[in-house]
Amino acid sequence: MSRSPGRKQENHKISRELFVLTYGALVAQLCKDYEKDEDVNACLDRMGYSIGIRLIDDFLARSAVKKCRSYSETADMIAQVAFKMYLGVTPSVSCTSATGNEFSLILDKNPLVDFVEELPAERASLCYCNLLCGVIRGALEMVHLAAEVTFLQDRLKGDAVTEIGITFLRKPEDRKHRR
Amino acid sequence: MSRSPGRKQENHKISRELFVLTYGALVAQLCKDYEKDEDVNACLDRMGYSIGIRLIDDFLARSAVKKCRSYSETADMIAQVAFKMYLGVTPSVSCTSATGNEFSLILDKNPLVDFVEELPAERASLCYCNLLCGVIRGALEMVHLAAEVTFLQDRLKGDAVTEIGITFLRKPEDRKHRR
Repeated sequence: MSRSPGRKQENHKISRELFVLTYGALVAQLCKDYEKDEDVNACLDRMGYSIGIRLIDDFLARSAVKKCRSYSETADMIAQVAFKMYLGVTPSVSCTSATGNEFSLILDKNPLVDFVEELPAERASLCYCNLLCGVIRGALEMVHLAAEVTFLQDRLKGDAVTEIGITFLRKPEDRKHRR
Repeated sequence: MSRSPGRKQENHKISRELFVLTYGALVAQLCKDYEKDEDVNACLDRMGYSIGIRLIDDFLARSAVKKCRSYSETADMIAQVAFKMYLGVTPSVSCTSATGNEFSLILDKNPLVDFVEELPAERASLCYCNLLCGVIRGALEMVHLAAEVTFLQDRLKGDAVTEIGITFLRKPEDRKHRR
């Protein structure tokens, strides 16, 4: 970050609409650049990853959260603190595996698609918000948590809710000594 | 907009860092897409324009501002209400012409470049934040104000401040009957 050390404390809160529309412009540009939805999705995920590995510092500094002791705590933190902070919404969280390493973030309302009516027919496989998956994956990696993050349901595709699946790839027991 | 009419009032405030990083990803993508800085600048301006013509509805609804009676009031409104709302900063405004239709918005600090160290040497002509010019131009057009909006100074290019110039293209007298 290029912040000068002496600058005064600022208000970092903004209305999200400019962000939502700018994100739409980004997705539209990628749809021009790549013919295949899969390539757009992969690009959004890569971009998100790059963002996540930088955003984590801001998140830790601003949220002043304590270290999470379990995957469950981590999932709650993403939903209740990070989503609230950066998107103004709080998904509900559910654990979806007996092994305790798979979670779903359920969004009744996805603010990123506020201005999107529906996906064009020729873009049926587009994961419009795939950047978010990359952001989560990148941020988690920076706190030494490997995870797969994908959209499981998407209201833009006619599902009842939008659901992001997070699968943590190692057990907490394996990593305690490193966290 | 695809908002359902009955939904509850929500918090639209978000931290701006995700937006700033996403904007950076957009500019980086356009730099991949276009060799010439001028083409990137033009694309950002076009994208901004498309955003501005949609954002104005949100702005008018959320700000509940009264109709501006002069170019000077309009410039103040952009700086003190719109910039504050969507970027969390308030530029200072100065009128820069005797004819009263040219204004400068001066940003001591430009939040959109928070994570940008400096422009690469091969991108010396890039107007990194040119989207903002397009947004302002598009939004003004929707309230029947034609304007040219360009960056006059840019701290990313070594200038002391970042300065956005707005030139309103018709006199208020010409348009009173239509506003």
